[in-house]
Amino acid sequence: MLTPAQAERLEILLVSPRNPLNIGAAARAMANFGFRRLTIVAPFAHNWMEAKSAVGAPDLLREARVCDTLAEAVARCTLVVGTGSLDRRRPEQAILTLPQAAAQVRQTIASETAGGRVALLFGSEKHGLTASDLSWCHAIAVIDTADAQPSMNLGQAVAVCLYEISRTPDSGSSSESPDLAAPRAELAAADQPTSEQLDRLAQLVEETMEAVNYATRGMRSANGEALRVLLRRLMPQDADLRRIMGLFRRILWQLRKNP
Amino acid sequence: MLTPAQAERLEILLVSPRNPLNIGAAARAMANFGFRRLTIVAPFAHNWMEAKSAVGAPDLLREARVCDTLAEAVARCTLVVGTGSLDRRRPEQAILTLPQAAAQVRQTIASETAGGRVALLFGSEKHGLTASDLSWCHAIAVIDTADAQPSMNLGQAVAVCLYEISRTPDSGSSSESPDLAAPRAELAAADQPTSEQLDRLAQLVEETMEAVNYATRGMRSANGEALRVLLRRLMPQDADLRRIMGLFRRILWQLRKNP
Repeated sequence: MLTPAQAERLEILLVSPRNPLNIGAAARAMANFGFRRLTIVAPFAHNWMEAKSAVGAPDLLREARVCDTLAEAVARCTLVVGTGSLDRRRPEQAILTLPQAAAQVRQTIASETAGGRVALLFGSEKHGLTASDLSWCHAIAVIDTADAQPSMNLGQAVAVCLYEISRTPDSGSSSESPDLAAPRAELAAADQPTSEQLDRLAQLVEETMEAVNYATRGMRSANGEALRVLLRRLMPQDADLRRIMGLFRRILWQLRKNP
Repeated sequence: MLTPAQAERLEILLVSPRNPLNIGAAARAMANFGFRRLTIVAPFAHNWMEAKSAVGAPDLLREARVCDTLAEAVARCTLVVGTGSLDRRRPEQAILTLPQAAAQVRQTIASETAGGRVALLFGSEKHGLTASDLSWCHAIAVIDTADAQPSMNLGQAVAVCLYEISRTPDSGSSSESPDLAAPRAELAAADQPTSEQLDRLAQLVEETMEAVNYATRGMRSANGEALRVLLRRLMPQDADLRRIMGLFRRILWQLRKNP
């Protein structure tokens, strides 16, 4: 099990969940594994009220945060992990096994002083996370399921993911210890920009594109999705972000000086 | 995941389950993780019929075995593992963590020729496995849950146990290490820009900096080293590079049009 302070830094996000029983089951799994922070994104109002008012609903369900958009929900997070079975989709982000993703999550929330915030996203029962939802993610965690029945029930998927994240490997399982060989993995979570900071850069880049009439084929899709994915895939650090934003602010200033 | 022959040697036993939805959820989790053999012990007839006839019930539910007694249900098994949260009870059998119990189960069903049969028991929602039920068990597997909410939902407990049993720890510490960059490193080499291509982007960025009189503290060191390092650290792919260069070319063109 994680410490309460660590568990506090993991937020579970349910995106437009439909079945009140599933919402309740997700909340119960959170309580089972010691997690408290639940966010419901763009809920179906009726279903959400029903879940919230169910007899025996855990406190964390009544205290859940509700956000209209995923952008708002992940704004303060330094690592955003989507879950899914991947079937047809081929996202650009890193695709991790659940044990790999869980190790990454634990590492991010581990430090008592410089811990980052992590969001773990679950899509709606109907179609899972959409391509647009996934565009906010740094990585996708995939549960290894049977080909004949790959898609898990929402409440059960939450239970399995939280079990793996809080799983205490038995002594001597050296393979589980996070290997910090890769330079990137050594980054303190505190050096990673939040989703909100990445969006400020995205906005600057989009303003610049407009200022120079850069009608791109790929980069500036209708909703800036491609740019969002690109920035998360590149994983710039805080300092990088400051430098890049400094440059783009200067470019914009210069362009506007001589329109 | 286990081989089908191995999965065939694990039987899931639900002892007097009450909620048809939970029975259905247990069956779905079995299908998710490739298990087929389900036994319902001393069912409540009405609830069992309802679960069995539910729309979308997996085949394994309709093909489930029904036994009046646990003695009959576990008769052919060489290892019987109960599950529970233990609260008040102090059983005499070995109490194992779920990872320990799962290792034991895997070992028992591993051999294609001399594999034993394993029964994994789940008690009813109301009180879990009774002392009498536990008396048939060689060991008790305990899921590590929070003290404030130790008791798991039946369907979720089945999902977590079967996940752990079929869990494939990645071989070697390197693949287990949480390195978000690793999956990217697996990209076809053809997708990665050459050093020369990266330098062309660096040059474009430097020209832009000059055009806007961006005298940076960090980014434009005397020899452009910082920029070079940054671009390599971000690991853009070929397509990214083309998009980013397209934008900077456009910026430069615009700036030079109106000097």
